[in-house]
Order: sequence, then structure tokens, then C-alpha cells
Amino acid sequence: MLKFKIKATLDRVRVGVVKTRHGSFKTPVFIPVATLGAIRGLDNRDLKDMGVEVILANTYHLHLRPGDELIKELGGLHKFMNFNGPIVTDSGGFQAFSLGYGLEHGVGKIANNIFLEGLKEEKLKEVERKRFAFVNDRGVRFKDPKSGRIVELTPRKSMEIQSNLGSDIIFAFDECTSPLSDRAYTEKALERTHRWAEECLEYYDRRQALFGVVQGGEYRDLREKSARFMAERDFAGYGIGGSLGKSKQNMLNILDWVIPLLPEERPRHLLGIGGVEDLFNCTERGVDMFDCVAPARWARRGHLYISPAEGGNVKNKFRIHIKNSAFTRDTRPIDRTCDCLVCQNYSRAYLRHLYKANELLYFRLATYHNLYFILKLMERIRNSIIDGTFYELKKEWLGV
Amino acid sequence: MLKFKIKATLDRVRVGVVKTRHGSFKTPVFIPVATLGAIRGLDNRDLKDMGVEVILANTYHLHLRPGDELIKELGGLHKFMNFNGPIVTDSGGFQAFSLGYGLEHGVGKIANNIFLEGLKEEKLKEVERKRFAFVNDRGVRFKDPKSGRIVELTPRKSMEIQSNLGSDIIFAFDECTSPLSDRAYTEKALERTHRWAEECLEYYDRRQALFGVVQGGEYRDLREKSARFMAERDFAGYGIGGSLGKSKQNMLNILDWVIPLLPEERPRHLLGIGGVEDLFNCTERGVDMFDCVAPARWARRGHLYISPAEGGNVKNKFRIHIKNSAFTRDTRPIDRTCDCLVCQNYSRAYLRHLYKANELLYFRLATYHNLYFILKLMERIRNSIIDGTFYELKKEWLGV
Repeated sequence: MLKFKIKATLDRVRVGVVKTRHGSFKTPVFIPVATLGAIRGLDNRDLKDMGVEVILANTYHLHLRPGDELIKELGGLHKFMNFNGPIVTDSGGFQAFSLGYGLEHGVGKIANNIFLEGLKEEKLKEVERKRFAFVNDRGVRFKDPKSGRIVELTPRKSMEIQSNLGSDIIFAFDECTSPLSDRAYTEKALERTHRWAEECLEYYDRRQALFGVVQGGEYRDLREKSARFMAERDFAGYGIGGSLGKSKQNMLNILDWVIPLLPEERPRHLLGIGGVEDLFNCTERGVDMFDCVAPARWARRGHLYISPAEGGNVKNKFRIHIKNSAFTRDTRPIDRTCDCLVCQNYSRAYLRHLYKANELLYFRLATYHNLYFILKLMERIRNSIIDGTFYELKKEWLGV
Repeated sequence: MLKFKIKATLDRVRVGVVKTRHGSFKTPVFIPVATLGAIRGLDNRDLKDMGVEVILANTYHLHLRPGDELIKELGGLHKFMNFNGPIVTDSGGFQAFSLGYGLEHGVGKIANNIFLEGLKEEKLKEVERKRFAFVNDRGVRFKDPKSGRIVELTPRKSMEIQSNLGSDIIFAFDECTSPLSDRAYTEKALERTHRWAEECLEYYDRRQALFGVVQGGEYRDLREKSARFMAERDFAGYGIGGSLGKSKQNMLNILDWVIPLLPEERPRHLLGIGGVEDLFNCTERGVDMFDCVAPARWARRGHLYISPAEGGNVKNKFRIHIKNSAFTRDTRPIDRTCDCLVCQNYSRAYLRHLYKANELLYFRLATYHNLYFILKLMERIRNSIIDGTFYELKKEWLGV
């Protein structure tokens, strides 16, 4: 089902290999998100060239379109999207938040994180405090924002959908609470998540590797309770789900509380997080798996990653905004230390032109660079753990 | 500047090689359009993989954004877009039509052609008979639909912009009339085009290869007059511009009138045409060069090319519409006889899903397939001329 071998450790940091029925991936790993079974503008050859070993697709989205039953009929998600490596699917529980409290509160998993900006820009006006997800003890009822169709996800249904998709690593159905949920609500939601986890353990497809998800919001006792609850049960690995508090420091505290309580020999997946800083700080605390739409989302909005050699730092979030007029005549690549297809072929001036002209090629090139950049950084982090230079690398990038 | 060698002929059909200062391309050739210096969603590696030898970019569009002077400053268009093969630029005269009479009349170069459909769908409501281009004897004044900025193109200005872009093959500034223009107007416009051609001959950058453009609408005497006028002057090649009448048959008649009057030893470019049927019928009449946005435009709208082996024919225009529910469970590639990246990797069912979900990857894959398909067909046509099977191939595809 799933094997996890730890190859090297350095304090709580570790390097390993996760083996699934569709091949292996090295950890710590950044997992690109293929929401609907496709990574924005990138095809399989691109993924191969980038060294993508594993991807994550969204249960809720694929259930709606094209439908998990259709995908099963066509031979499963691997065959459907022609990706033969390991595939992870989430539980659908995050959408209970992102289409529910997230919209209602106008926040992301960390109250001030990029999701919040995303909402402000794209969704907030549109939704006007309307919710598309409603939680009860049975599960979550969704209203599809596009079709208006009502869809219910329950623990059993989530297991069934993920079984139809045929992914290698699946997540137990959970309720992702809001950073603005109070303690009473978070506690109630946590009890629900624990009940649901047991249901998932009962019903999941034994050919798949089931991860339990630790919830509990920003409350230390709830997080510890949840970590112990999950650790006692036979999950193949463990997700750490949001709400992750009101700041990045909150998130790191949560990891400090939770990770020591989880079994050493199982992989830990920090759900939905993957900024440059996070990759260092969370790997340092023992996280093995990351997934995040941010590199692709930032790319689309004109933010392109640069390394410290190009002036990238914590303050500028390792990004330039390509629209900046400073790049009008800039014939350098995005990052001279990057050997991706984009940096080997195109100038900032050209990319700025494409961005301003809203050219389709911009979206492809920007996504390609940002994903490649994060994947290569993750690779460097793995190597630094093996050769004992992790802290030097971290200092080079974060300054501390 | 430019050399054209005819390698084989079959009646009026010919195979040749055009040599420019940035390398060669084989003719008859289909030239993909990179309006703003980029082909929709495709990067240079894609173009290389597809065997693209030459591309066409738009003078008017690049003049507006990012500006030809900036491109010159950055080392010219080849360097800017990192394409080292031959580049063709048009004169900007087509936009005098497409943003002028074309909009006013709601028609394309052939009154019932795809451009008309394009206008109906996308533009007609938006523009409501407003024009963005106004012709006088001096040149064409444009109002940029996006910025409202007024831009004037004259023969001299067109030569200057094309010189700044540094393309290999350039076109003399011409007025592209409308299929609905009457004879009196078409004659007046033709006189203008001829005066402008002489101005271009005087001012063009001698490092570039200048093509004259035969105009004259659907009027035989005007077309013949224009062909003789251009043939008498020392152009490196000849464009045949629209209006091309009110039907495909009109267009073929125009070719029958014009081509015998043009010098054998110079290449002939039929501007803006490139449907499957056209490639056969116009090659048969001695056309050497085609450019057309249609394969990419159709791709974006869900129309994907199929060969006769998959049921493609004149009636269905060699296309399927991928949204068709018949493809929901269709695990075949778009075309089983196609060896492109898309057909080797993805099913119709998957592409239909991406199309319906409006996924960025759809646009890339669809454009890739359609362009590849047309390029490979053109290659087959070239080979068929060499081995004397052109008419058999034409019969196999067109049925006649």
C-alpha cells in the first residue's frame, strides 16, 4: 500500500522515500496541484522534464467535473490524465472551509495568507458573504457555484470518490475550520473530524494509502488531542490541516505541538502550504510533504520567483512582479541561476510584454518557471539534509 | 536578401526552398501566426518539435505593444522572442480592413469566411459598427481599441517599423479592401496601393526581402492590372491580398487570374488563408506560402482537426467539436494517425473535460494539435508534389 523509508535525518529534519503502487517520490517533497486533473498549462512532458514525481488532485472538483464515476469507467485518474506516477487526492474537506467559512469570513487557512488576498481580489465581491458549503454531523453539503447543483460529501462518500479516482494516497474526510472559528466551534468540529476519520478507516479502499488529518485550529490542547487520536490509529501517514492560526508563527507553533506526537516512521503532509520560507521552516520541524497552488497562482498574477542571487529575500517573498517597468529593457532571464526552459530561453523584457498583452504563452512560461523553481529548491533542501548543510542553506535563503 | 529555388514542379504546383538571412524554409509552407511575437501557448521548443521553420508576426500589433523601437533596442524580433528562423511580418494594411471596413461591414476577406463568424461571435456586438481604422491617400489612421491611442501607418512608417522589427520577409503597405467594397472604391484603393508600393520600394530596409501585394478585390481587370504592376517591379516575392470575393470559388478564380502574371521564379504568398481545402486548391494553383490564424483560433473554440482516416472531409471541414457528448467516454486520441504530443498522450474524453472546465492546458494542447496537423499535412503535400502523387493525395482528402 505505502512504504516510507527515512534515508537521512538532521535533528527533526528528514529525507526519505515514499513508495506507492504507482512508483516512488523523494521527501521532503513539493507536490504540484492538478485541481481538475491538469496542472495549469503544463503537459506530461513538462512534468517529466521538471522532475515532478507526484501530483495532487482535488476530490471535490473532480467529483463535480468530469465526475469520479466517469473517471473510474475510463480506467482511473492515472489513465485519464496519463500520469503514471503517484497521485494524491485530498478529502474534499478543505472545500467545506474554502466555500464555507472561508468565504463567509473572507479568510484563508492562515488569516492573513495569500488565500485571503485571492479572495479579496477575485471572489469577495462575487460571493458577497454567501456560502457554498454547509457542515453538519453527517458531512458537508455543497452548492456548486457554477451549476447551482447540490452535492453532499460524507466520510463514506469521500472514500468512495477517492476509490473511483484510484489515487495512491487519499485523505480521511475532515472539517477544515476557519482561523476565525472560536474554541467551542473548533472543538465541536474536531469531534466530528475524529468520528469521520474512524468512518473512513472502516470504509476506505484497501488498495489505497489512507492519511488521517490532524485538525484543532490554533488551540494547543485540541491540536495535541487530535495528533494523539490520529497517531493511535493505523493511518499510512498524517495530514496537518488548517486553520493554521493567525500568523506564520502560529503555524510553526502548531507544527511544534503536533509533529512530536506523530509516529516517526510515517510521512507527514502539511496541507496547502508551500511558500519559500515555509519549505525551510516546516521541513525543519519534520514536515515531509507539501502541496500548494501558490506557485501557479502567483505566476498567473505576474509574480515570478527569484533566488537570493537575484535579490530574492523574505521581505520581497523571493518574487519580482514582471509588470514592473524596470523590466521593460531587462534582457536577463527571470533568474540567472535557474536552468529551466523559461530562464534558458526568454528575457524579463519578453515575459513582461507577454504578461501585459495577456498572451496565453505568458501563463505557461510563468507557471513553468515558478513550479520548476520550487521543485529545484526542494531538491536542494533534500540534498542539504543529506550532506548536513541544511542550516547553511536556510541561512543563505532566509537570512536566519 | 532572399533566394528561392524551385526543386520540383507538377503542372502549376511547385516545391521549393526560400533562403533568408535567418535560414531557410521549404515551400509550399504553412506559416503559423505569432501576432504579438508569441504563438498561443506554444514555446520555442514546441515550435522546433513541430518542425516550424518560419513564423509570421504582425507589424501593427507589435508597433502598438511592446513597440517596434523597443524591440529594435533589444536586438530585434528574433532576439526578443528567441526565434532564430525566418520571420515574416505583414504590412499593417490588413488591419486597415479588419479594424475598418471589416468591422463596419461585419465581414472577412471572403464575405462568408471564418473571420465573419469570428466577428459575429466575438466582436460584432462590442463594436456596433464603429470603426477603428480610417484610410486616406497618405495612409491609415488607427484608433487602438484598447488604449484609444491614435496611430498612423503610412508606407514609409510601415517600412520603418518592419525595419525596426528586423524581420526577414516584409510586405509593402497596402490597403486591403472589403468584399463589400464596390468597383469604384476598389479601383481607387488599388491606385493607392500601387503608389504606396512604389514608396515602399524606395524606403525599405535593403537587408530585408520586400514582397509586393496584389490587390484588386474580386474584379478581374483590377487583379490583372495589379499583378502586372507588381510583376514589373523588383519585389523579392508577391503577396496576394484580400478581399478574395464572396466565396471560395471567387478566391480560386482570383488565383487563376493573378498567378500566371507573376514571375515564376519568385515566391507567392496567399495572405491570411490556410484551411485544409485551401492548402490543396491554392497549392494546385501555384501558391507557395500560406499564413493563417485559423488552426489556433479553431482550437480555442473546441474545433480539432481530423484526417480522412478519422472521418474528416470537406463537409465537416476536417474537424470535430470536442464538446460533443459523443466524446465523453472516447478514449481514442483526437486522430489515431497523428503522431503529435497530444495524440500520443491524451484521449478525446480528457480533452473534452479540459475544454468544458476551461482549463489552461486545453488551449495549449488544442493549439498544438491543430498546428501540428496542418504542418504535417503541408509536409505531405510537399512530398506528394515531389513523388508525383499530389492529385491522389488531394482526392484522398477532398474527394475530388
